[in-house]
Amino acid sequence: MSSFVVALDVGGTSMKGGLVGRSGEIILTDRRVTPRDKGPAVVVEAIRSFIDELAVTGGGTPAGVGLAVPGLVTADAALYSANIGWRDVPAADFVPLNVPVMLGHDVRTGGLAESVLGAGRELSDFLFLPIGTGIAGAVILKGEPYGGTAGWGGEIGHIPVFPNGETCACGQIGCLETYASASAVGRRYSARVAATPATSGTPTSLATPASSATPASVASPAPLAVPVTAEQVAALTASGDPVAREVWDDAVEALSLALATYTLLLDPSAIVLGGGLAEAGRLLSDPLAERLQSRLTFREAPPLRPAVLGVRAGMLGAALLGWRAAGVPDAGATWPLDVLKSPRVA
Amino acid sequence: MSSFVVALDVGGTSMKGGLVGRSGEIILTDRRVTPRDKGPAVVVEAIRSFIDELAVTGGGTPAGVGLAVPGLVTADAALYSANIGWRDVPAADFVPLNVPVMLGHDVRTGGLAESVLGAGRELSDFLFLPIGTGIAGAVILKGEPYGGTAGWGGEIGHIPVFPNGETCACGQIGCLETYASASAVGRRYSARVAATPATSGTPTSLATPASSATPASVASPAPLAVPVTAEQVAALTASGDPVAREVWDDAVEALSLALATYTLLLDPSAIVLGGGLAEAGRLLSDPLAERLQSRLTFREAPPLRPAVLGVRAGMLGAALLGWRAAGVPDAGATWPLDVLKSPRVA
Repeated sequence: MSSFVVALDVGGTSMKGGLVGRSGEIILTDRRVTPRDKGPAVVVEAIRSFIDELAVTGGGTPAGVGLAVPGLVTADAALYSANIGWRDVPAADFVPLNVPVMLGHDVRTGGLAESVLGAGRELSDFLFLPIGTGIAGAVILKGEPYGGTAGWGGEIGHIPVFPNGETCACGQIGCLETYASASAVGRRYSARVAATPATSGTPTSLATPASSATPASVASPAPLAVPVTAEQVAALTASGDPVAREVWDDAVEALSLALATYTLLLDPSAIVLGGGLAEAGRLLSDPLAERLQSRLTFREAPPLRPAVLGVRAGMLGAALLGWRAAGVPDAGATWPLDVLKSPRVA
Repeated sequence: MSSFVVALDVGGTSMKGGLVGRSGEIILTDRRVTPRDKGPAVVVEAIRSFIDELAVTGGGTPAGVGLAVPGLVTADAALYSANIGWRDVPAADFVPLNVPVMLGHDVRTGGLAESVLGAGRELSDFLFLPIGTGIAGAVILKGEPYGGTAGWGGEIGHIPVFPNGETCACGQIGCLETYASASAVGRRYSARVAATPATSGTPTSLATPASSATPASVASPAPLAVPVTAEQVAALTASGDPVAREVWDDAVEALSLALATYTLLLDPSAIVLGGGLAEAGRLLSDPLAERLQSRLTFREAPPLRPAVLGVRAGMLGAALLGWRAAGVPDAGATWPLDVLKSPRVA
């Protein structure tokens, strides 16, 4: 058997690829733009040539290929993705070589990596919750991601935490994601600052010249010229900015409701927080742990743990799928504890 | 091997027992009061003698014993029940005979019965939701109930559906149970009628003489002298009573939120409704199905199905556990489709 697999994590913006050895050596990593605007056929072709290039760089035929893709997916086909636009693409269409291949759902494949190699290594049942542009979770049961009857599970970003709240981009009311995703935090802060008279507390660092010159009585509710990032809102929250604190607080409250619900339904041993918003560290996890416990009167809240694999989680999960496709189902179990720091071998 | 097992469903009020044959014949059923007010040791002793009586009636030693009990439970021990008050009771303590025994959580054991013998026979992954005095669910995955890391899962009755809503008996805010359990529906109706001036729509059939004689301006907010049942509220709702409709509507709304959340997280193939409130049939399920779908913009709602085993679900699930304890893990798979109508044999 070949000594490496090709692993690919296909996102709406970029594709993260890698070659991963039998003992978890990350032989190389690479990245390509996802040509989503050119249509699904071009994306499939881009995946094929990326896999081919990676295999050539590896100097031979890989033992298997693993792919993490968004949307509805089985091990053998990418059934549907609103984001990329494809329907019913068989696994073999992605792979220019005659090697075994296995597909996985993007968030669940990241969850698999955290389960086998990351924060969940000692855990059997937990929630992997990456909080990024959107929010979706991987429900990990007995060490493996669970996607539900048809593969639509894990949509914790769209559970109604505030049933009479704001309308989400998905059309539903009060979704977690519309309060607590990294983009929601930035967007909601921008909207409040734009609607707030400049004299009443708009932080100087973010006020545009135009808005600080606008008299309070005619302050325009238009969004800020420069969108604010969740990272900036986190920094402003830490420095005591009242508008940022309100927005941060709403995100924490929404997350505490969603996690209380998850805890009561599924009794996880832990909740593993990842994605951009979790980069805020204890600014997020301290108040969240406190609010979560305050929502639970008759049971302990599960511990919150930071994810450890970062943006590599999807690619590493895809590597596990590639090894599973190659007939090595326990790949990962013996890999080094800190796979991200494993030496790159040529 | 003996031709029958003893099955017992231990509730806070009563214990439902039965003898069930190898092919699902319900040989007999019986019932005892649970002497909960006399303390846990007396309850354990009552269970022992009930099992003994059932075995004697069966005319021999059973192949196994299955028990459904409330609280935290493993197959080998009843670890904790706030309701009954016991802690760490080994399975053998419940059984006066030297036969294999298996314990199960009460709601999950009922869910197992619905899965193997009832509404879930053709389903792999679903929610069993009995709506009675309280609300707890059985999360059924791959045909088997899932209780979470430590056995505290399925507490859907206490997820916060209205985060700024009414305080639940458990101390949490806005729990599903405090709006939608059968007792909540009766209690909330009674409270509204008591707080409403008799002249403005209190239904004659339920107004007490005292309250109908009270002038509007000094109407007492005390509860009705006779508590109203959920069944009565259902009948009043069907007949167009505005207060009943409001209370019913709140219950439906709370349930739709909880089921939307469950659906988004776990993508079940169906939701099986049981318990007292589900006796209302389409008065509950029609508006619930509609509200559930309206909360879900990007996916279909799973179908709602009525549970079919009624109050026997727990005892039948316990019979399955008894047969599993006896070394017949596939008991139930070949039992008659309509086990409740199977002929009783002597």
